[in-house]
Amino acid sequence: MKKNTFHLAIVLVVAVSAAAQSSPQIVTPEDGKNAIKEIGRAAVGQVLHTQQEAWNRHDLDGFMAGYLNSPELTFFSGAKEASGWQATLDRYKAKYDSPGHEMGRLEFSDLRIEMLGYDAAFVRGAWQLTLSDGKKPHGLFTLVFRRMINGWKIVHDHTSAAE
Amino acid sequence: MKKNTFHLAIVLVVAVSAAAQSSPQIVTPEDGKNAIKEIGRAAVGQVLHTQQEAWNRHDLDGFMAGYLNSPELTFFSGAKEASGWQATLDRYKAKYDSPGHEMGRLEFSDLRIEMLGYDAAFVRGAWQLTLSDGKKPHGLFTLVFRRMINGWKIVHDHTSAAE
Repeated sequence: MKKNTFHLAIVLVVAVSAAAQSSPQIVTPEDGKNAIKEIGRAAVGQVLHTQQEAWNRHDLDGFMAGYLNSPELTFFSGAKEASGWQATLDRYKAKYDSPGHEMGRLEFSDLRIEMLGYDAAFVRGAWQLTLSDGKKPHGLFTLVFRRMINGWKIVHDHTSAAE
Repeated sequence: MKKNTFHLAIVLVVAVSAAAQSSPQIVTPEDGKNAIKEIGRAAVGQVLHTQQEAWNRHDLDGFMAGYLNSPELTFFSGAKEASGWQATLDRYKAKYDSPGHEMGRLEFSDLRIEMLGYDAAFVRGAWQLTLSDGKKPHGLFTLVFRRMINGWKIVHDHTSAAE
């Protein structure tokens, strides 16, 4: 019911935008679907942007807000799986925010956000850290996002690094 | 239109199964949705089973049939991306089916197939090879599947190994 209301709202937005243009246009259900997907893509992109900014001010809690706060969250790296939000946070803390480690400066690149319906998306991308000694660990990641009541959240993260 | 016919067929299957039971049951649209998801999950599981069997008879072409035969396919490993079906095949050939290499025996485990709608799913799992010298390289993988006209296909594979 809620979803239908949301769909209707989007169709109306598309209809109004179309009506506002100079030449008359036919608005199809396909336009509504595409509009919903565009909104989803933008929201997912915003989560990643927010994560990158949080990391770069060394705000691990802000960074973690992009992840689903649930025992269902999974984080894969190498042959190791962290199960749940807390285990994922613990891994980040041990690896980047503990004595002898540093968060450095994070950059995402080559982001490809693909919608898999109205409430799911996956992201392919590359990451690079720049550390104070000039080293630049880097690699690739795959993220699965779901649309939750409190916004788009990462439910699964698979990250790998240059060997 | 085709999709609606498919949905209807599933709802009918559910309705008939429910009717066949001893106590009367109300069949809701939710039952139809769940039935479609169950069918998707089974189909994805079958693709993985077929891949594992193909690998273990050293049939790389049979294994590759699980992947979308398209330049859009992506394969992530470490910091390296193979773009497209051909590049993915070339990587497998170089790594497992060329002089000095072997395919060994492949086992998938801890498979978790999650539907992300009617035509998308993702899979979390672990892989292990057993080689003739007794070595057992292993790691984790994340797969994104889409339902295509010729069945469920992997559109993205992120594989990592023990460091």
